Amino acid sequence: MTLLYEGKAKKVFEWNANSYLLEFKDSLTAFNALKKGSFPDKGKINRDIAALIFEYFKAKSIKSHYQAKHGETGMLVDKVKIIPLEVVVRNILAGSTAKKLGLAEGLVLKKPLVEFYFKNDELQDPFMSDDQVLMMDILNEKEILEVKALALKVNQVLQVLFLKTGIKLVDFKIEFGKNESGEILLADEITPDCCRLWDEKSNEKMDKDRFRRDLGNIQESYEEVLKRLQKALLEEL
Amino acid sequence: MTLLYEGKAKKVFEWNANSYLLEFKDSLTAFNALKKGSFPDKGKINRDIAALIFEYFKAKSIKSHYQAKHGETGMLVDKVKIIPLEVVVRNILAGSTAKKLGLAEGLVLKKPLVEFYFKNDELQDPFMSDDQVLMMDILNEKEILEVKALALKVNQVLQVLFLKTGIKLVDFKIEFGKNESGEILLADEITPDCCRLWDEKSNEKMDKDRFRRDLGNIQESYEEVLKRLQKALLEEL
Repeated sequence: MTLLYEGKAKKVFEWNANSYLLEFKDSLTAFNALKKGSFPDKGKINRDIAALIFEYFKAKSIKSHYQAKHGETGMLVDKVKIIPLEVVVRNILAGSTAKKLGLAEGLVLKKPLVEFYFKNDELQDPFMSDDQVLMMDILNEKEILEVKALALKVNQVLQVLFLKTGIKLVDFKIEFGKNESGEILLADEITPDCCRLWDEKSNEKMDKDRFRRDLGNIQESYEEVLKRLQKALLEEL
Repeated sequence: MTLLYEGKAKKVFEWNANSYLLEFKDSLTAFNALKKGSFPDKGKINRDIAALIFEYFKAKSIKSHYQAKHGETGMLVDKVKIIPLEVVVRNILAGSTAKKLGLAEGLVLKKPLVEFYFKNDELQDPFMSDDQVLMMDILNEKEILEVKALALKVNQVLQVLFLKTGIKLVDFKIEFGKNESGEILLADEITPDCCRLWDEKSNEKMDKDRFRRDLGNIQESYEEVLKRLQKALLEEL
């Protein structure tokens, strides 16, 4: 198999004419890869979480690149060309935006905020306005509206799902890709690596912030997220 | 007279029930006031440039807070409540946006780009998206469209005026205010302190970048801008 790309948390292989194989790695990074770490079974746990969410999305009519699980840590996905935007949706302010605008972490927003960051490690993923996205020909006006609507739909479905598990969805980062017919699909992954997840009762962090801030019990938290999602979905069936 | 506010380049005094007096200072600052300087007659030159532009705008139906010149360095203006946004319009990429997005300085944009920065010295005037402006209740959706349209109108009129003087308008920063009846007016100033102005033939900088980058001849450049504007306007009359 040909390795097409190795990212911080996944490898992408050519699988067949229509599919890539994503292999989820045990490593995790933060602060634009300045901080590096790993824990056992991380690749497997995150693959299971992502697969479970993508399968749930299919039932909720959210189209993604997801095809099927493969082996212990693999996922087969449609071939899409990734749009170079990190699309962030925030329900509660935390992280860079709170800091930048001088607002309190934990501020519950009246409505979800969608943000675009230019996916470019060298430039450290700078924040962009819609007009800058247009200026750089990343998306046209119609596509910006479509991507925002998709991101808000993902947020709505995901928020309800996580609430069933006793978890508040604070914010998350997603990516989109275009398939050969130009259709925009949800791509990449949804895992505790790219979400802020707070326990509903204790407000305890159950996501990569445990790694960023050296809070310990990273593996246990990721496992707990998976366990709760599995339980919630079993109950729904 | 009561001094209401002292900024980096102007003082604001209470004048009467309907007016403030702006006094233009000889000082200039850059990099969020980390670099400080001044030159003789700067206040007078900038007051003259700003007055001349606001008077020209009146003839072109662009409403501003401007009333009249006062003394050597003063300007009487309507009382408005400043909207805490620095509105930047770019025709040619230079400065922070070029750097942030990894684009070449000097790139001529297909259409002008309007950007919002949160006017907050402590936070170093962070860049904001339209959605963040909405989220912070700085403007509503209708007002965002109005401010962008006003900024583009200012750009159009200013670009034509400067071209008559042999100067390319690269970018500029403006501010808006609301008067008592809620009308949005162009406020603050338009001077070489807040524009990038390049000589049409030599591309030589004729603005505050001469100070930022220690290029010398700051006073001469500001005087030259004033002289060229006066000449262009005399020809138009």
